Amino acid sequence: MIKVSVFYPNKEGSKFDMGYYLSSHIPMVQKMCGASLKGGSVDQGLSGPEPGSRPAFVAMAHLLFDSVEAFQSAFGAHADSIMADVPNYTDIQPIFQISEVKG
Amino acid sequence: MIKVSVFYPNKEGSKFDMGYYLSSHIPMVQKMCGASLKGGSVDQGLSGPEPGSRPAFVAMAHLLFDSVEAFQSAFGAHADSIMADVPNYTDIQPIFQISEVKG
Repeated sequence: MIKVSVFYPNKEGSKFDMGYYLSSHIPMVQKMCGASLKGGSVDQGLSGPEPGSRPAFVAMAHLLFDSVEAFQSAFGAHADSIMADVPNYTDIQPIFQISEVKG
Repeated sequence: MIKVSVFYPNKEGSKFDMGYYLSSHIPMVQKMCGASLKGGSVDQGLSGPEPGSRPAFVAMAHLLFDSVEAFQSAFGAHADSIMADVPNYTDIQPIFQISEVKG
């Protein structure tokens, strides 16, 4: 199983519309990826390790696929549409990472 | 549900012993947190969005708890022991974040 993680760094003065992200952007990604998408989560940053400290990321999405190839095949055809929607909810440049789920 | 994420930035020349992390460190954290720990994952960074590019994080752990209070109560008593084990598998300074799982 591989995990595609999208991180939104918590920059001073930046905006992130979690309502739009959950109600529009993520459902669009889910629809476009179809059955290739095996699960995942959307996380909203609360704090760093100390209560009240700033979290490193204002939001993260973690999407599970069977393989890198399955992700590329599902996402590749729709990458332009998905990226074009980003300015509708944030002005943060997301960081992408592909990981192998080890446990 | 809240998620405690631990990120290990992928620094040139740094070490990370995934074998030790999976076989010793994570089981120690699981044992110390007991039933408060509701699940989670350990991810090994494969790449950035482009094949062959460097992932932002060499490894991540994501641990689920019912609440921030449940995490603090479970982890607080053992934080020193857990942190003292870090040099046994890495010389990377981990980044911690607490998030709310929104979906």
